Amino acid sequence: MNAAEVARERIRKGLWKGPTPGFAAGYTQANIVILPKQYAFDFFLFCQRNPKPCPILDVCEAGQYRPLLTAPSGDIRTDIPKYRIYREGILQEEVEDILDFWSEDMVTFLLGCSFTFENPLIKAGIAIRHIDEGKNVPMFITNIECKPAGVFSGPMVVSMRPIPSQLVDQAIEITARYPKVHGAPVHVGNPEEIGIVDVNRPDFGDTVTINPGEVPVFWACGVTPQAAVMRTKPEIVITHAPGHMFITDIQDEELKGL
Amino acid sequence: MNAAEVARERIRKGLWKGPTPGFAAGYTQANIVILPKQYAFDFFLFCQRNPKPCPILDVCEAGQYRPLLTAPSGDIRTDIPKYRIYREGILQEEVEDILDFWSEDMVTFLLGCSFTFENPLIKAGIAIRHIDEGKNVPMFITNIECKPAGVFSGPMVVSMRPIPSQLVDQAIEITARYPKVHGAPVHVGNPEEIGIVDVNRPDFGDTVTINPGEVPVFWACGVTPQAAVMRTKPEIVITHAPGHMFITDIQDEELKGL
Repeated sequence: MNAAEVARERIRKGLWKGPTPGFAAGYTQANIVILPKQYAFDFFLFCQRNPKPCPILDVCEAGQYRPLLTAPSGDIRTDIPKYRIYREGILQEEVEDILDFWSEDMVTFLLGCSFTFENPLIKAGIAIRHIDEGKNVPMFITNIECKPAGVFSGPMVVSMRPIPSQLVDQAIEITARYPKVHGAPVHVGNPEEIGIVDVNRPDFGDTVTINPGEVPVFWACGVTPQAAVMRTKPEIVITHAPGHMFITDIQDEELKGL
Repeated sequence: MNAAEVARERIRKGLWKGPTPGFAAGYTQANIVILPKQYAFDFFLFCQRNPKPCPILDVCEAGQYRPLLTAPSGDIRTDIPKYRIYREGILQEEVEDILDFWSEDMVTFLLGCSFTFENPLIKAGIAIRHIDEGKNVPMFITNIECKPAGVFSGPMVVSMRPIPSQLVDQAIEITARYPKVHGAPVHVGNPEEIGIVDVNRPDFGDTVTINPGEVPVFWACGVTPQAAVMRTKPEIVITHAPGHMFITDIQDEELKGL
């Protein structure tokens, strides 16, 4: 078994119920969106039109809970530590598996996650503040509207990392190599320009310290589909809980330049 | 009006009924596949899993005949010189517009076409034999199976261009820069290795001369979806006729490196 398979099995058996950063290092972690087939084409289109916040790693056929191309031994219904159930666009509950919610009608999307580019940043000597502070990354709803698709529309959600000003160019260059996991930043500097009123009050995740001489840098974020789901209000949508990702058999290095 | 809009208008008015190569030079021409919504998700998935033969440029919502992102003034129903109507997987007729076949249920896919990379090849001094001989590019059904998706499966179709052996590396390098229009070749040399019995008897298009010292080079081809359609046999599928493409407002140069 590879490290991803070991990690998925631990989660499946209920031996790990927390966030997944650092699990199966080097293996790509994915955002998950599961919805009824009647919404699947429109959501696919939404992702295709908004590849920066919604980069598609894999899509499963209706009822298929094994991602045959990216984690054939995995089980989408059990291999995530914590799921979120949205009904009519409202977060109703968090659960540890979705066996009771699954049906032959459910279509699963696996989307890239910025965890993949954080390792290369760290290797290049660019510290990641939320990791150093033991927190979740701060995320903000912006005034950048995604391209609508069918019934789906919504604002782009971004994640923010404070970067020392002299390292910003390098951070842009490194993350640009990973378009399948959000790629280069969508905004650098003044948060108000993208509709963020207070950079110390994120809409999701935690507040992190921004030191003098550091610039807030904003990347498109995989929570964007959850904002679209909240606006569109399908009967049911299931996602991972923030930070509790699905671990694939893809290696981060394979995504370079794709 | 830009040159693409002028070309589309000429075609719409019935002033041009022939193949489109050379029309609106520099503007990207697209393969077109139109099918009923019930097949749209599976076909989307087929394209996403087989990006070399089926590189998605744009997808329109059901009933939408204006490609809002790539040719907002265009009309998919009238702006192609010749269409093919497949019923139950069998080519039934060729028509000059599809107004009578259109319905609110029809979903249109625009896929990249190798015409885009032929110009950069020619600019680099690599002649394109079928252009020089005034023919259609030769295309072959291979023994390379596409990744199946839902109801769709089928062999990869390739186009062949004879390239002088000393220029093959350069041809690979140039076309690799255009992944949205099939990218680098899928095979170089011996046709039998990919199941082609006679390189002088193409399955689609015309036979071209292969001179001594030239190597047959094979690129994934946008006719691949038509092979999948022939196997899957939906009630109705509409495509462009080979060589009679839809001209978008995208410029070829914009696709470089995407």
